Amino acid sequence: MRIILVGGAGTIGEAIFKALSTRHEIVIVGRKHGDLLCDITSMESINKMFDQAGAFDALICAAGEVSFGNFNQMNEAKYRVGINSKLMGQVNLVLMGRNFIRDGGSFTLTSGILNHDPIATGSSASMINGAIDGFVKGTSIELDRGLRINSVSPTVVTESMNKYAPYFRGFEPVPAAKVALAYSKSVEGKLTGQVFRAGW
Amino acid sequence: MRIILVGGAGTIGEAIFKALSTRHEIVIVGRKHGDLLCDITSMESINKMFDQAGAFDALICAAGEVSFGNFNQMNEAKYRVGINSKLMGQVNLVLMGRNFIRDGGSFTLTSGILNHDPIATGSSASMINGAIDGFVKGTSIELDRGLRINSVSPTVVTESMNKYAPYFRGFEPVPAAKVALAYSKSVEGKLTGQVFRAGW
Repeated sequence: MRIILVGGAGTIGEAIFKALSTRHEIVIVGRKHGDLLCDITSMESINKMFDQAGAFDALICAAGEVSFGNFNQMNEAKYRVGINSKLMGQVNLVLMGRNFIRDGGSFTLTSGILNHDPIATGSSASMINGAIDGFVKGTSIELDRGLRINSVSPTVVTESMNKYAPYFRGFEPVPAAKVALAYSKSVEGKLTGQVFRAGW
Repeated sequence: MRIILVGGAGTIGEAIFKALSTRHEIVIVGRKHGDLLCDITSMESINKMFDQAGAFDALICAAGEVSFGNFNQMNEAKYRVGINSKLMGQVNLVLMGRNFIRDGGSFTLTSGILNHDPIATGSSASMINGAIDGFVKGTSIELDRGLRINSVSPTVVTESMNKYAPYFRGFEPVPAAKVALAYSKSVEGKLTGQVFRAGW
């Protein structure tokens, strides 16, 4: 398969690359590094990336920003960060990507555990993750040409615990390599409309 | 209790008013009709409404617009309708309302069944409902002063089947009066961080 991997330079992105690159051709897309560059908050940038990438069989997105902060300090602008990046960035990859993806292809987006198991400072992540899981569920029944769409919902990854441990006390972290299996299942399996939990 | 009911003129809003007005003081808020007027897509309008309303013990929102349409015709602008109205309209009611609500008060937002049981044309509703349920879950653990927040997730209501039946084939509709019970449970009970399913 020819797979576009958005966010290929991140912790999870690198693990996905390792898991899939032995069997497939991977086009790494990043904001600053990669085979192709793309800022997923910009429809123009997404469009340009797909024009350069050409036809593909699967798109994986493991990118997207969300604003963390104590709820008392959260305001509309901070929720809009996640809406414009992790949510509509991924949605726009699908809206534009459907014009370039081959019949039978798949989209795999990334949500996360926090809409099920919330943490302090994570109200925006909880909101955005729920939106992504809902979008995947709703969209899956309307895709044509045998296209599929799923999300992967990881818990905190082991490789990030040096930064995030204080926010995730009591959470059992999961190695990024194990999270990558969920993307493999989504891309190389046949299910659609699923939220693949990774590590929880 | 003094309860602000946003969307009081709608099908569900009217049923909530019937269920709660015998025991509580209800301030009906609507875009065009009501004790107070408010356009929930405008932070200025929300701010003005709370200034006029004064202190309260509970806010219920049964308002918010979402764009329905075949996925092949959906574009970013159509997803933004729901983001700006049903999602951020309700979120902004909480962000602003926390400055006016009394200790121990509650926020009750409205999501819907479609992120669990999707229908064709409903991908935006699925996305927005998931976002609201996630926001409620994430926010509930950070609210102070004994404040609570829940969402009510109704299936299609009987009173709307004359318009929506073709989209909801096989769904068992629920009378609005039964949906209103879920709002009562949220406001008059003590639970927080819940998604109260209504009719499913």
